[in-house]
Amino acid sequence: MLKIAIDVMGADNGIAPIVQGVVRALKNRDFIAVIIGDEAQITPLIPTHLRQKVEIVHCADYIRMEESAASATKRTQSSIFKAIELLQNDAVSAVVSPGHSGASMSLATLKIGRIKGVLRPAICTTMPTTSDKPSMILDAGANTDCKPEYLVDFAIMGYEYAKHVVGLENPRVGLLSNGEEDNKGNELTKASFKMLKHFDFFKGNVEGRDIFNGSVDVIVCDGFSGNLVLKASEGVASAINSVLKKEIKSCLCSMFGALFLRGVFRKLKQKMDHSEYGGAPLLGVQKVVIISHGSSNARAIECAIYQALLAIESDICAKLAHTFANKAPIQE
Amino acid sequence: MLKIAIDVMGADNGIAPIVQGVVRALKNRDFIAVIIGDEAQITPLIPTHLRQKVEIVHCADYIRMEESAASATKRTQSSIFKAIELLQNDAVSAVVSPGHSGASMSLATLKIGRIKGVLRPAICTTMPTTSDKPSMILDAGANTDCKPEYLVDFAIMGYEYAKHVVGLENPRVGLLSNGEEDNKGNELTKASFKMLKHFDFFKGNVEGRDIFNGSVDVIVCDGFSGNLVLKASEGVASAINSVLKKEIKSCLCSMFGALFLRGVFRKLKQKMDHSEYGGAPLLGVQKVVIISHGSSNARAIECAIYQALLAIESDICAKLAHTFANKAPIQE
Repeated sequence: MLKIAIDVMGADNGIAPIVQGVVRALKNRDFIAVIIGDEAQITPLIPTHLRQKVEIVHCADYIRMEESAASATKRTQSSIFKAIELLQNDAVSAVVSPGHSGASMSLATLKIGRIKGVLRPAICTTMPTTSDKPSMILDAGANTDCKPEYLVDFAIMGYEYAKHVVGLENPRVGLLSNGEEDNKGNELTKASFKMLKHFDFFKGNVEGRDIFNGSVDVIVCDGFSGNLVLKASEGVASAINSVLKKEIKSCLCSMFGALFLRGVFRKLKQKMDHSEYGGAPLLGVQKVVIISHGSSNARAIECAIYQALLAIESDICAKLAHTFANKAPIQE
Repeated sequence: MLKIAIDVMGADNGIAPIVQGVVRALKNRDFIAVIIGDEAQITPLIPTHLRQKVEIVHCADYIRMEESAASATKRTQSSIFKAIELLQNDAVSAVVSPGHSGASMSLATLKIGRIKGVLRPAICTTMPTTSDKPSMILDAGANTDCKPEYLVDFAIMGYEYAKHVVGLENPRVGLLSNGEEDNKGNELTKASFKMLKHFDFFKGNVEGRDIFNGSVDVIVCDGFSGNLVLKASEGVASAINSVLKKEIKSCLCSMFGALFLRGVFRKLKQKMDHSEYGGAPLLGVQKVVIISHGSSNARAIECAIYQALLAIESDICAKLAHTFANKAPIQE
């Protein structure tokens, strides 16, 4: 049976929500969860009937958020180091971690290795849209400074992921820019545009709003920009949420009205909730690594595990290896 | 009496909403509106009792959105060229334009000129927050590629604007980055951080979500990043709006509940609505130029005119000139 390693240490809200997420996934799908973390805290959270589907690798140490990603390679007793080591040794088929994302990325890149031909691995984050399909944005934070060639790789990886893992027939790829016109952009995106225009899947420049309206399936950008727009988006959603809550509570009449809208608010939350997309695969490394948000709740971890299973079953790493082995030289 | 030039051509929805905005402002404040645009279309939109407060400069030509900003300097018969020319000749005290923003910026920079010591003018956009004060983000799109020194200028200009125009006592300035820790950032922001840390007003790195939570008053970034986060934010707000509307309409019971929440939704709209902030001043040029959104409604134009009046009354351009004349050399 497939084994998936879950690093339950180092998340923002402690071990409990992460282990609860693993338990939820175990109830629904067949796999062995290799849980890396503090055994004394983990064991009581696993229901007895699921214990035969769980292996615990005891580990109390983890990379703190304030530590540098570079230090991760020396921290051989940390939970993420142990998780990536298991993946490296084929003891598991995937790693899911809500811990220090920089540490997960550098360990994955160094110990698992890049797919031949991929210049830089990228984090591919799934976003809710108003259409019936989500969109994907990459790089969502792995590479703060990028060269145009990296963005071409991100486009190819995003296209393949959308096709083989998400199951879209003809994924459309856009380049995140400050305007839709071909001549818009900064130095990086203008140079990237020239290279990307040779690909059939490339639909030109898109703007921040296109992340949420489904006008393209994959949005490509450098990791700094990707991170900015994702966090700004979260900020807006949370601001709207807090204004709504405050205003509803300010009068009995609106509280009464809100009772009738519970279903609407639940659907809105479901539609816009990041948890439903679990985690973000680190595309471009040779095996499946899923980076989850530090503040992941149980539902997000459950979904991240489903994502890992889907990535394994779709054999995305082998498909990417095949594509990059046959990649034509980039034209300008 | 103060004269303000309003370029009513080239906005997304035609002349009508722009002129209506001018009319609203004229009803509330004392100034002369110098309206540049197609006289035959403008005249019927001005109520008779306000006509003595209006001068129309007939002009049917304008810079199309698809034209390049660079071409604006040659288009001497265009509405924005005429508006900026009036400002240059001191025939008006400010220009408000919802037309081609690149054209407005390059004409303002070339014909009005930069304040001595300012390396690049920047667009300073006001954003709604969940606190009781708005925040300002600059550069919101004037400079796609920036040097660290530019970001230092943006920080100083944003601080001065927040202090003298918005009236904040001790404005706090943050640097938009991919994490709050001092070592986070891309090459540009890391170099900018080193220079900004010498200023008392500098509160370190902030993230996209800080634009909306009031944790700082001024957020500094390159114009490409600023544009991305603003458009992504608009995209999220509009996605939430459309999901809410769709879900409310899907059942009679929620439609009934929504009746009781009309006040709540109105307040949310008011709080999160960009129109309330009108336009964005182009800081760093020697006179007052307000750049408005191409899709501005009447309310947005009305507010943009109030912003222009406030900028003139606070004498922000002279204050900036004074600050930059006395600016200490940047340390690293």
